[in-house]
Amino acid sequence: MITNRSQVTEMIQSAKVRKGIKWSQVAEVVGQSKEWSTAACLGQMAMTKEQASAVGELFELTDEAIAWLQIAPYKGSLPTDVPTDPLIYRWYELVNVYGTTLKELIHEEFGDGIMSAIDFSMDLQRENDPKGDRVSVVMSGKFLPYKMY
Amino acid sequence: MITNRSQVTEMIQSAKVRKGIKWSQVAEVVGQSKEWSTAACLGQMAMTKEQASAVGELFELTDEAIAWLQIAPYKGSLPTDVPTDPLIYRWYELVNVYGTTLKELIHEEFGDGIMSAIDFSMDLQRENDPKGDRVSVVMSGKFLPYKMY
Amino acid sequence: MITNRSQVTEMIQSAKVRKGIKWSQVAEVVGQSKEWSTAACLGQMAMTKEQASAVGELFELTDEAIAWLQIAPYKGSLPTDVPTDPLIYRWYELVNVYGTTLKELIHEEFGDGIMSAIDFSMDLQRENDPKGDRVSVVMSGKFLPYKMY
Amino acid sequence: MITNRSQVTEMIQSAKVRKGIKWSQVAEVVGQSKEWSTAACLGQMAMTKEQASAVGELFELTDEAIAWLQIAPYKGSLPTDVPTDPLIYRWYELVNVYGTTLKELIHEEFGDGIMSAIDFSMDLQRENDPKGDRVSVVMSGKFLPYKMY
Amino acid sequence: MITNRSQVTEMIQSAKVRKGIKWSQVAEVVGQSKEWSTAACLGQMAMTKEQASAVGELFELTDEAIAWLQIAPYKGSLPTDVPTDPLIYRWYELVNVYGTTLKELIHEEFGDGIMSAIDFSMDLQRENDPKGDRVSVVMSGKFLPYKMY
Amino acid sequence: MITNRSQVTEMIQSAKVRKGIKWSQVAEVVGQSKEWSTAACLGQMAMTKEQASAVGELFELTDEAIAWLQIAPYKGSLPTDVPTDPLIYRWYELVNVYGTTLKELIHEEFGDGIMSAIDFSMDLQRENDPKGDRVSVVMSGKFLPYKMY
Amino acid sequence: MITNRSQVTEMIQSAKVRKGIKWSQVAEVVGQSKEWSTAACLGQMAMTKEQASAVGELFELTDEAIAWLQIAPYKGSLPTDVPTDPLIYRWYELVNVYGTTLKELIHEEFGDGIMSAIDFSMDLQRENDPKGDRVSVVMSGKFLPYKMY
Amino acid sequence: MITNRSQVTEMIQSAKVRKGIKWSQVAEVVGQSKEWSTAACLGQMAMTKEQASAVGELFELTDEAIAWLQIAPYKGSLPTDVPTDPLIYRWYELVNVYGTTLKELIHEEFGDGIMSAIDFSMDLQRENDPKGDRVSVVMSGKFLPYKMY
Amino acid sequence: MITNRSQVTEMIQSAKVRKGIKWSQVAEVVGQSKEWSTAACLGQMAMTKEQASAVGELFELTDEAIAWLQIAPYKGSLPTDVPTDPLIYRWYELVNVYGTTLKELIHEEFGDGIMSAIDFSMDLQRENDPKGDRVSVVMSGKFLPYKMY
Amino acid sequence: MITNRSQVTEMIQSAKVRKGIKWSQVAEVVGQSKEWSTAACLGQMAMTKEQASAVGELFELTDEAIAWLQIAPYKGSLPTDVPTDPLIYRWYELVNVYGTTLKELIHEEFGDGIMSAIDFSMDLQRENDPKGDRVSVVMSGKFLPYKMY
Repeated sequence: MITNRSQVTEMIQSAKVRKGIKWSQVAEVVGQSKEWSTAACLGQMAMTKEQASAVGELFELTDEAIAWLQIAPYKGSLPTDVPTDPLIYRWYELVNVYGTTLKELIHEEFGDGIMSAIDFSMDLQRENDPKGDRVSVVMSGKFLPYKMY
Repeated sequence: MITNRSQVTEMIQSAKVRKGIKWSQVAEVVGQSKEWSTAACLGQMAMTKEQASAVGELFELTDEAIAWLQIAPYKGSLPTDVPTDPLIYRWYELVNVYGTTLKELIHEEFGDGIMSAIDFSMDLQRENDPKGDRVSVVMSGKFLPYKMY
Repeated sequence: MITNRSQVTEMIQSAKVRKGIKWSQVAEVVGQSKEWSTAACLGQMAMTKEQASAVGELFELTDEAIAWLQIAPYKGSLPTDVPTDPLIYRWYELVNVYGTTLKELIHEEFGDGIMSAIDFSMDLQRENDPKGDRVSVVMSGKFLPYKMY
Repeated sequence: MITNRSQVTEMIQSAKVRKGIKWSQVAEVVGQSKEWSTAACLGQMAMTKEQASAVGELFELTDEAIAWLQIAPYKGSLPTDVPTDPLIYRWYELVNVYGTTLKELIHEEFGDGIMSAIDFSMDLQRENDPKGDRVSVVMSGKFLPYKMY
Repeated sequence: MITNRSQVTEMIQSAKVRKGIKWSQVAEVVGQSKEWSTAACLGQMAMTKEQASAVGELFELTDEAIAWLQIAPYKGSLPTDVPTDPLIYRWYELVNVYGTTLKELIHEEFGDGIMSAIDFSMDLQRENDPKGDRVSVVMSGKFLPYKMY
Repeated sequence: MITNRSQVTEMIQSAKVRKGIKWSQVAEVVGQSKEWSTAACLGQMAMTKEQASAVGELFELTDEAIAWLQIAPYKGSLPTDVPTDPLIYRWYELVNVYGTTLKELIHEEFGDGIMSAIDFSMDLQRENDPKGDRVSVVMSGKFLPYKMY
Repeated sequence: MITNRSQVTEMIQSAKVRKGIKWSQVAEVVGQSKEWSTAACLGQMAMTKEQASAVGELFELTDEAIAWLQIAPYKGSLPTDVPTDPLIYRWYELVNVYGTTLKELIHEEFGDGIMSAIDFSMDLQRENDPKGDRVSVVMSGKFLPYKMY
Repeated sequence: MITNRSQVTEMIQSAKVRKGIKWSQVAEVVGQSKEWSTAACLGQMAMTKEQASAVGELFELTDEAIAWLQIAPYKGSLPTDVPTDPLIYRWYELVNVYGTTLKELIHEEFGDGIMSAIDFSMDLQRENDPKGDRVSVVMSGKFLPYKMY
Repeated sequence: MITNRSQVTEMIQSAKVRKGIKWSQVAEVVGQSKEWSTAACLGQMAMTKEQASAVGELFELTDEAIAWLQIAPYKGSLPTDVPTDPLIYRWYELVNVYGTTLKELIHEEFGDGIMSAIDFSMDLQRENDPKGDRVSVVMSGKFLPYKMY
Repeated sequence: MITNRSQVTEMIQSAKVRKGIKWSQVAEVVGQSKEWSTAACLGQMAMTKEQASAVGELFELTDEAIAWLQIAPYKGSLPTDVPTDPLIYRWYELVNVYGTTLKELIHEEFGDGIMSAIDFSMDLQRENDPKGDRVSVVMSGKFLPYKMY
């Protein structure tokens, strides 16, 4: 009996290691970007029936697990408020160091409001560089102005 | 007597409101991007003597304040671990929701290591869109592999 | 010298007590609802120049304070994660007790996504009731679906 | 052996996914609103014997589980003080941003006291809107004045 | 300029020490119990105009301070979630040790609901005892049943 | 194998639901008040051999569980510092709102010291009231003066 | 105007540094042990009128400060739950490492109950030792058994 | 398979209750004080091979458990920063109330440095007293001066 | 089924105790320093296929466990923000006491930037000393200057 | 009037910026290493009378400030448990990532005990490297074995 979505994430991670599957392969069967597809497998997005079936086949999941993949999950992928993993911490640090800068520049350009984290997409690429390759991430979110009423 | 860098940040924010200065103007006198220049004014980067003088002139700061602008500050711009401001929170949410996804994809492409938050640059632009303009942010950080020893 | 927006909130609260001004009067000069107008005075919304001037006149604020009212503030009105004030705590309790219920019902009706807290309005009214009057609050927020990409 | 109410919540969530039951169906067999019925299933309200039996039949629960549904549960549906799930977080954000506003307006209308979270009801509806449908939630709670003694 | 209610609490505490006033004297001029009157002075209750004037006279407060005494304060008298002061901690400990017991016994007697902390009164008395005098506190709160809807 | 006292508490709670036992019945077999008896079953007090045997018989516990009931348990019945359950939270709120009041009044009457939470008893009763029945709790604790040395 | 006891503690600490006073001198004028006298000066105990006057004379305090020394203070001398100062941390560490040991041994000897921190005294002495002098602290607290009722 | 030391602590606690063993008996077979022996069993000290074998025999532990008793454990015996158990809390309270006093008196006697929690011993005894027996604890730790370099 | 890397760490720790393996032996089969090899076994580094196989043979791990050893783990080896174990706490204390000193001295020598924790190595040795042997740790990290852009 | 040691740290930091003094100059007048001298100025060590006078002359401090430099300070240089500043965070990260490794290796070499943070010294140097200069830090602390008693 599966009682929460994180059990399915663990099944996927376990099968991924055992079978040596890559996220790019997952994206292919899902038919969406590698960013969205990975997030969906890790319990942060809800899949359509077709996507869930394809993922289920790839990782050899049970029907019950496939049903759970179609449920909107309780999101949040980190075990602590401040992440301990160095790779993820660097992203937290960027928000901490550049948080007020992002706020100032978005308000200067758009006025009071936010950049949406829902109407949002992300693209992560390797940037070749002779001084050492770089990770390049493009984040795009709709600007939502505060409504006056 | 100025006893810490955040007093200078407050002086800058106060003068900015009184004088109606824009961050793009600041970037111009600093001679760097608006992202770096704003972060530097907000106490997250150290300026050169020339940059500090230019900023001091623009905001009419004292010599003592200008000296503080050249000191490497105690960084971190947020008053709480989890930011309460909705604009900044959305960025925290992105790290929380996509944290494990970023980790998986960077490791799949580069192996074990991190994306640097120090050898890093950021570019924020308005993206015109008929369904509502978007905020587009490009983040570029050097990949640093874990050293085996 | 005013160095942050919360100093202006304190000036308004102080003048409000001294002069016995009511929030309904504030809403009238602002020209928006009492909910938005109060939130704006308490440092949670940015005012237009006209709104700020009207509020400044009502509370006899300085020009510097009026300039700050037009800046998008660092939002969040509570001193602790879990509010200690009994009136505000009851709202926190509603989120805690009904949080998963709201999640289930919104997903059942709309699919994966959120109810916006930005494209949002709120209306608070007295509901007469022989067994004791009630507070009635209507909250309306745009549904934002998660984007697949 | 069932040792706490959250095990029953997990049984219900598991059966709901396996059987594809909707909360509106649950409300029907319970004979109360979808809001109260969902909260009750999720471990936030105590059911009568008849309600518990009906829910037990729908989800095929054991007699022991049905007995637990009639016990007043240890309430609170969130794993952390500040919820990480974006849908629920928006509600937390509303309390954070509008907390002092709600306090001011209720006190202005009613005097010192609170809006009850116990003598309370809630109604969530889809609001059709050409610019995008909205979630509309009406919350109604009895005003309770502080007693002087 | 007084900018928040806790400044008035400090004025009262300061005058109380300087003048050697007792809480029983305060209760007399307020015309309510010593428990309610003390809580009101310490920023936990709102006074009527007459009560505030009487308290203002006793402690020689300014008109501005007297105006603040009539405002519903942001309640909560403790600087930390878990109080450090031994006398107050013992009360926290009672809630911690007996919390589930109180829950069980109130539910057994009344069903699902709470004991009100708003429609509430408290009476603290010395209880003479040859083995050492005791503090006796009677707490009385209206039972509020959860509403089904 | 039982490895901690909270396993026994879970056994008791499970059996209580299955068998429909009441705390008043438990108090009878224990031979003490319903308050002390309930707290003891919930892992907050240590029982004598006779009390443990009687409780064991009532709930059909094993000899090993009965042995654990006689051990002084690691006390504290709440999973979080600030309780989320509304009934228990109201008690926390009372300590928070009235904490400094209790301190002031006990010191005014007794001098520096505390009200004991160990040499303590509690009595919870229904108080009939035409405006709605009330929960009445009498708490009695020995005053312990700080020793000067 | 003195508004809380910690201002008096700061006055004492400041005068102590300026005048080079020793705690043993303070104990002498107070007429109690150095442990109690120091704790009283640091805001953890209430003094009699005579003790307060003597301390006031030694540190050249104002009458207002001397009045505050006779008030039972809000106790707790540490700015954080887990102390950062290495000397004080070692004491926290002892409680953490030996906490369950103290519990087991006191219960084995005395049954369920506590060692009082109120009816308590402490004596700190230098213990000469050829391998390096030691700090010896004797702590004595009355055992208080849990009352059955 | 035993995967951490706390499993062995649970085995010991479980056997101790089942068999009715006393810590004084444990100390005897270990050949050290009851304080050190208890701490060692509770996962705070590492035993020699002989001590571990003797303890293993007394509690009928497996060879694997006996091997774990000889490993230096991850120390810290409390589940929360601030302990909830009243007996252990009183010790935390002593550190909180007397923390700065201990610091002042040790520095006055020895200069800057700490009292060691490693080169440390503790002796707990019953102190007969007609007004109620007392718990007496002697703590002795080597003074370690800060090294200048 | 292995669902996360920490299960493999537990398998290694369990086998290490059962078989009495030393970290120096592990380093030998891994072919790297004892510091890196230990960290890798404890779930803080990713191994190559060869290293994982060698470690798997030494500890008799399954193929599935060996596959997990080659995955970049979610790093962070401590269960709490402030470590409770005295040996590890001393390192935390060094960062706390010397944190600002390290910052000042690195900035004075190198300018604004950080010492890398990724391009990093560490060497721990016994330092013989007649007054008591010492632990000597050499830490070497690349200096990374903040990039101006 | 100076009421705590951190005011003196602020005076030193302020004068250091105004006068452009370097820590190496401070070390020279103190007559100790730059590491100890910096830590002492930043409020983490107590100075001798001579050291304090020399530092006072260099920074033009008052006699009162010089007196405070000779007092053992309340240590701990960081405003939060987990430091936000990137340079200092990397050190926290090292403790987090390598904490259990340091524990294992020190215990393997020395047995149960700790590396002292009091009988401790540290030396920070630039390490020239063609691939980018490195920060090299040697830390040396006396091993202290747990005492058996």
